[in-house]
Amino acid sequence: MIRIAIDAMGGDYAPKEQIAGALLALEKISDIELTLYGNENEIRSLLKGENDRIKIVNAEYVIGMGEKNPIKAIKEHPESSMASALASLRKDENDAVVSSGATQALIAGAHILVRRMQGFKRTAIAPVMPSVSGKPTILLDAGANLEIKPEHMLQQAYFAYVYAKEVLEIPKPVVGLINIGTEEGKGREFDKEVFELFKNTDLFDFYGNVEPKSVLDPPCDILISDGFTANIVMKTMEGTAKGMGTMLKQKLTSSFLGKIGALLARKNLKEFKHAMSPEEIGGALIYGLYRPVIKAQGASKAYGFYNAIRQAATIVRNEVFPKVERYLQESRKDENDEQETA
Amino acid sequence: MIRIAIDAMGGDYAPKEQIAGALLALEKISDIELTLYGNENEIRSLLKGENDRIKIVNAEYVIGMGEKNPIKAIKEHPESSMASALASLRKDENDAVVSSGATQALIAGAHILVRRMQGFKRTAIAPVMPSVSGKPTILLDAGANLEIKPEHMLQQAYFAYVYAKEVLEIPKPVVGLINIGTEEGKGREFDKEVFELFKNTDLFDFYGNVEPKSVLDPPCDILISDGFTANIVMKTMEGTAKGMGTMLKQKLTSSFLGKIGALLARKNLKEFKHAMSPEEIGGALIYGLYRPVIKAQGASKAYGFYNAIRQAATIVRNEVFPKVERYLQESRKDENDEQETA
Repeated sequence: MIRIAIDAMGGDYAPKEQIAGALLALEKISDIELTLYGNENEIRSLLKGENDRIKIVNAEYVIGMGEKNPIKAIKEHPESSMASALASLRKDENDAVVSSGATQALIAGAHILVRRMQGFKRTAIAPVMPSVSGKPTILLDAGANLEIKPEHMLQQAYFAYVYAKEVLEIPKPVVGLINIGTEEGKGREFDKEVFELFKNTDLFDFYGNVEPKSVLDPPCDILISDGFTANIVMKTMEGTAKGMGTMLKQKLTSSFLGKIGALLARKNLKEFKHAMSPEEIGGALIYGLYRPVIKAQGASKAYGFYNAIRQAATIVRNEVFPKVERYLQESRKDENDEQETA
Repeated sequence: MIRIAIDAMGGDYAPKEQIAGALLALEKISDIELTLYGNENEIRSLLKGENDRIKIVNAEYVIGMGEKNPIKAIKEHPESSMASALASLRKDENDAVVSSGATQALIAGAHILVRRMQGFKRTAIAPVMPSVSGKPTILLDAGANLEIKPEHMLQQAYFAYVYAKEVLEIPKPVVGLINIGTEEGKGREFDKEVFELFKNTDLFDFYGNVEPKSVLDPPCDILISDGFTANIVMKTMEGTAKGMGTMLKQKLTSSFLGKIGALLARKNLKEFKHAMSPEEIGGALIYGLYRPVIKAQGASKAYGFYNAIRQAATIVRNEVFPKVERYLQESRKDENDEQETA
């Protein structure tokens, strides 16, 4: 059985929607068992009965959604639902954590209580974006590593490749480097080094440089850059969607047909803006931790939370983490061999 | 009189629309005289009569809009309309150049034939973007300097400040630094250094960090970053606008009202996408040259080309370049004083 820890108390509509999502997950996914971390009385009253695939671990404190000092909150409240769920991974009590609690607290908590996978140098945040064609695109790193070495990006790209293959079910995921031009040799010195490294790797197919002009219709499945650049891309998408929504409203509300158009367009723009917002990205996985931690949307309702649980189960079932670990072990072995030969 | 050199042959609709735009400019702006560079016979047939504020300089070659090797084209064709117009600035025959010819050729030609203003370290490209509030925003650097020192960015920001004040008529232009977070201390080491430098300058008001979430509704008049980042912002805006247009179309065309909405929205999205496209930005000024070179849209019609001429005249009339030069002279003087004192 896949053992998933649920932070039952984190999220705008917790614990109600989290519990409903957990029950839905148990109904739909047969190979999981869940441990709910949170206020036992509240949880019991929402569960309405026993289920032999649910355990409850009482956790008295809840880290607020607007927590200003996430590191302090996590450190000072090991008894919180989030911290106790995270801590269960290193104790081998669970295989993954799902939380819709405060993003920064979850990231800080994951680094403190779950820590990195052995040999993985820089964890990354990798939202999955919508695209024109309907196929998902992984964007990384969305802000964890502002300054990073090319070889660390190779690890991250490989993680994304395994994730895209095993979880997004893309048979042959292709990686593209975000850059200001498509030709080889474009960009900063850093980008040229990354290009060279990716061009010569056997780990995945490298498309080459991709301009953000095609960010919503990219010729690849994974878009990668340093955490500063990819975060700028994500926030520019959000800002453009937001600004365009307002501009369209201004322009369109001057005539009757325009008003209809505005209403119709605005609904879609709102959905789009929502999808682009880094705070609202559902089911974002932190790459390179010891075990999977999934950040579900803060505003998750039951179905969204169920989806995050399903994602966690798929990651564990399809051995995303062990596959990356094997690669890391082999590359360490290669390095050692080289050192011995040298 | 302000003397403006017109590349009459560059542009998708040259020389017809360029000549019409020039005639409109002469009619509307009383303190300019124009020198048209291009095929004399063609120009004469379009002018239909004499005008004592127009001169023609015959230039036999036209650099194509799709020129693959712009530097080579400029060097090998000093007799081209573009190169002869540019070369007239250093000979003090003109005060500014307006061209709707190929962008890369114009930039290369400007660097070779006009060269930098004394003391200005890194030229920059600075498109003026639309915004939700209707007030224009200067975005720089749009791709000229991928890697740059903070002190060079200070020069560029000051140039943008003078331009915003004298040409865009913003009484007290405010500068914002593009960054991944709004608080001081956010970003790469580079961004922190720029922040520190800008915070302590008396040259302009510094707003602080601005996230690209508010790129279309910024709390400042000038958005600055290194050429790599600002180019990524510009291209992401273009890509998001383009992708959203396609997605809206897909979503909306499923119902009758949706079709109306889609049509209405698409027209505006198209305009917006057009405004965002770096190839299509009208009247982009190259910062830091010896004298002003204005890139008008390749697809300029008469009115658009007239606007670029008007912009050139305003830049000269309001002494944008001499004002920046005075600052550069003073800062060189300060440096020398410091060296003498030391």
